[in-house]
Amino acid sequence: MASETSKRGKLYVVGLGPGNHEHMTFRAKDVLKEADTIIGYDTYVGLIEDLIAGKEVHRYPMTQEVDRANQAIDLADQGRIVCLVSSGDPGIYGMIGLVYEILAKRGWNRQDGLYVECVPGVSSLNSCAALVGSPLMTDFAVVSMSDLLVPWEIILKRVEAAAAGDYVTVIYNPASKKRIHQLKDTREIFLKYRKPDTPVAIVKGAYRDRQDIVVTDLSSMLNFPEMLGMITTVIVGNSSTFSYKEMMINPRGYASKYQLVENKD
Amino acid sequence: MASETSKRGKLYVVGLGPGNHEHMTFRAKDVLKEADTIIGYDTYVGLIEDLIAGKEVHRYPMTQEVDRANQAIDLADQGRIVCLVSSGDPGIYGMIGLVYEILAKRGWNRQDGLYVECVPGVSSLNSCAALVGSPLMTDFAVVSMSDLLVPWEIILKRVEAAAAGDYVTVIYNPASKKRIHQLKDTREIFLKYRKPDTPVAIVKGAYRDRQDIVVTDLSSMLNFPEMLGMITTVIVGNSSTFSYKEMMINPRGYASKYQLVENKD
Repeated sequence: MASETSKRGKLYVVGLGPGNHEHMTFRAKDVLKEADTIIGYDTYVGLIEDLIAGKEVHRYPMTQEVDRANQAIDLADQGRIVCLVSSGDPGIYGMIGLVYEILAKRGWNRQDGLYVECVPGVSSLNSCAALVGSPLMTDFAVVSMSDLLVPWEIILKRVEAAAAGDYVTVIYNPASKKRIHQLKDTREIFLKYRKPDTPVAIVKGAYRDRQDIVVTDLSSMLNFPEMLGMITTVIVGNSSTFSYKEMMINPRGYASKYQLVENKD
Repeated sequence: MASETSKRGKLYVVGLGPGNHEHMTFRAKDVLKEADTIIGYDTYVGLIEDLIAGKEVHRYPMTQEVDRANQAIDLADQGRIVCLVSSGDPGIYGMIGLVYEILAKRGWNRQDGLYVECVPGVSSLNSCAALVGSPLMTDFAVVSMSDLLVPWEIILKRVEAAAAGDYVTVIYNPASKKRIHQLKDTREIFLKYRKPDTPVAIVKGAYRDRQDIVVTDLSSMLNFPEMLGMITTVIVGNSSTFSYKEMMINPRGYASKYQLVENKD
């Protein structure tokens, strides 16, 4: 039994955080160290070059996610200790979904099948919020604008629900070269429910060298096309968000419910 | 100028992650090391006892958040290097909001005022998702059921919007000793929009010794009262979530949009 187990591979699906080693977890670094095989999108693998010297590395272009997941599972099944890496958190719009979908199709089970572990990380919502102030002190919705895998009508319906429900809204993948209308449509929907001066933060490349942040508002949010792209996240405030010196702040509750100076009374 | 700056204190508002050092970030550990003063809710401080030996430590009961935030700012203003600690991510329903609210009231500004840094961490939504499968592959809403600071009618309106918008929904603070009706009301709302067999995960004490996880469904979710409390998070699936051997899985997109075996063709 022991030798059977020791021969068996492992699959770690690892979140590297925003792409700067400081905001990676200890667990992520530990499993990268333990692994003999690294698989990932070329740019993500590039973020950890210094941590994976001497290991077998499979670099992929941005597409081919299904190939990546299948290869990771196959190599782990053959006894390799594999890290399938991505930036942020693989549990948020990340690779763990595809891995479990494929494993479920193969009849895998957690108890006596391949060891699979999702190593959570600091996702864009966590890192962008930390950089712009305190937008996520209240209920929030997270919506991806990518219509590659989800019909645009569904995304619109979700934006409408978030706007109507007064959710602070975190927008992943706000635009790409081929896709620029989404943020315009989204803004129109929010303007039906929120004031034009509602704070909006645009964060590009959080915690990376090229980090760029603008805190603007609903009326002006389309004036920064150079900020938009696949490493940009947009946060739209709700009715209680206020801007303060280039930050966006959400109070932790309704003003009537607490006093900021309660200790001074 | 240099001596002026070197005398000045710092305030780090630090997320410890789920409460187990493995899932803490390097940045969090580094700033804990740098600090001379630690402030936090007693239970959170207890999670890092081994990292803060020899430092001045201020432990608070669960309430008194305003006192905690004011003290942290005051001590940093006096030149101390302060870590105000909390579990999870201080940017998600955490202490950073109160800190910025108080600083804004005091007229602080980031450019030449006190150095303040929010150190993001792995929040409950990240850690619970990683433990139960892949629920957050699609758009999701995050709602706190605590009505201490937000009127219950507002929370109900948000739950309704999330249910109508087909959002996977992450519920923070689902219940406390005094508060048990919320999850019942919430379930009723979801049942208007989703099937009774929609997967629901209940995660208590993620990554802690007492961790306990149940994957159930909307119809049975109230049958686990012993799981509920302030360290419990509930995840309600959407129309595309399926359960698989005690896990909940969301596909990464609409089935028609991709093939799981595209590489085998």
